[in-house]
Amino acid sequence: MNKQMTARELRREIRAGRWTTQTSGAAAGYVQANLVMLPRSQAFDFLLFCTRNSKPCPVLDVLDPGTVAPAIAPEADLTTDLPRYRVFRNGELADEVTEVTDLFDEDTVSFLLGCSFSFENAMLAAGLPVRNIEAGTNVSMYITRRPCRPAGPFDTPMVVSMRPLTPVQAVRAVQVTSRFYLTHGAPVHMGDPAALGIADLSRPDFGDPVDIKPGEIPVFWACGVTSSLAAVSAGLPLTITHAPGHMFVSDLKDEDMTVL
Amino acid sequence: MNKQMTARELRREIRAGRWTTQTSGAAAGYVQANLVMLPRSQAFDFLLFCTRNSKPCPVLDVLDPGTVAPAIAPEADLTTDLPRYRVFRNGELADEVTEVTDLFDEDTVSFLLGCSFSFENAMLAAGLPVRNIEAGTNVSMYITRRPCRPAGPFDTPMVVSMRPLTPVQAVRAVQVTSRFYLTHGAPVHMGDPAALGIADLSRPDFGDPVDIKPGEIPVFWACGVTSSLAAVSAGLPLTITHAPGHMFVSDLKDEDMTVL
Repeated sequence: MNKQMTARELRREIRAGRWTTQTSGAAAGYVQANLVMLPRSQAFDFLLFCTRNSKPCPVLDVLDPGTVAPAIAPEADLTTDLPRYRVFRNGELADEVTEVTDLFDEDTVSFLLGCSFSFENAMLAAGLPVRNIEAGTNVSMYITRRPCRPAGPFDTPMVVSMRPLTPVQAVRAVQVTSRFYLTHGAPVHMGDPAALGIADLSRPDFGDPVDIKPGEIPVFWACGVTSSLAAVSAGLPLTITHAPGHMFVSDLKDEDMTVL
Repeated sequence: MNKQMTARELRREIRAGRWTTQTSGAAAGYVQANLVMLPRSQAFDFLLFCTRNSKPCPVLDVLDPGTVAPAIAPEADLTTDLPRYRVFRNGELADEVTEVTDLFDEDTVSFLLGCSFSFENAMLAAGLPVRNIEAGTNVSMYITRRPCRPAGPFDTPMVVSMRPLTPVQAVRAVQVTSRFYLTHGAPVHMGDPAALGIADLSRPDFGDPVDIKPGEIPVFWACGVTSSLAAVSAGLPLTITHAPGHMFVSDLKDEDMTVL
């Protein structure tokens, strides 16, 4: 039912306050995006961070200061059209809200970054299991010990998402997700979590744990939550991000994001 | 002979003033890059322009202000290691020089952007003809009437490069170049030049004309010269770019730039 909504219909529900939950699986086929809002004075360094770490932070759109309608969804308003926002003050979570109209001013620059929901649809279409969708939970995400390349005050390790697959399925998943270079593309690792500095797969830093069945290995993709973590790492007076899983839904289709 | 030089060897020749000509075909297999140098105050808008127009302006590296050693060639010096630079003052070409040490200061930000030389090697390896290499001339480049998405003061149409191919070769060229998403990727057009606003293929805006044989069609790729044109379009007091064809040669290999 939700799956058959268009992006515009879903955003209208969100804006009216009738949709307040996470967006995974909703308006299937439309590109969803991570959101970061920062003051203009920090925008260059943050865009630089994203450019230098494009695997976890693929830039889909950057808006002119003080504007709320992205090119990838010209009728949308980024201050009202996400179901839930996180407000950080001096690097600490201060609030979770359903709109940020009062916090947004002519100096605010909004960034939209690719999200792995795009390739999950492609994995399902290829007959691959996506455990978190099967379980109806949020994907497991982990803060790794692999550093990103810093830019100005933005400095954070890479966050990864994990989906369990058999080795044969993992080969197919590499093929399927490689096409989605603007939404994280191919995995960054598969197998031993310790190689990424992850101590315990059953305790993700974000999202929910999933079962790993006998014969399966964990497969790790660079995750857009890296952009939130990086934005907050600068300890700015005010930073706004989407709440995990509560993404911006654009008018782009997942297939628009593929390279081949 | 040149072909077998490493990037480091070629840069050493350039820095010593022993190599002053264009770099097409030299140090084959290493990624070559367009260069733009701008003041820090304009760097956000320029990076935004490149992000919004990533097909002609794919960002390979952006350096911290005042630094000359890119991450993609840590031992290099961008103020001395290109064979020829163009210096623009108030948007007008003022000089062509072989180093820019005296023009570079702690406020200067350097951008390196992908170049089609990367996929030319792949086309040759696939048995496709590259007419400009056969003829020993610079590739034909045209300013189109297709606008880029502007950012701040940076506003310019897209520049394309053109290589003639038969339709069957063009199909193969789409496959071969699509993998090189950080160096322009697939063609943006093939066939009628008028669709891009190009009046006369025999009179390119940059580079040299090439013969189009019977049965061939012109195939157009987004071109990194767009970044030079955009940088200059702002009419800044000082802008530095590479001279056309006189690229920066990085330590990356062309194969590092592929998506599959």
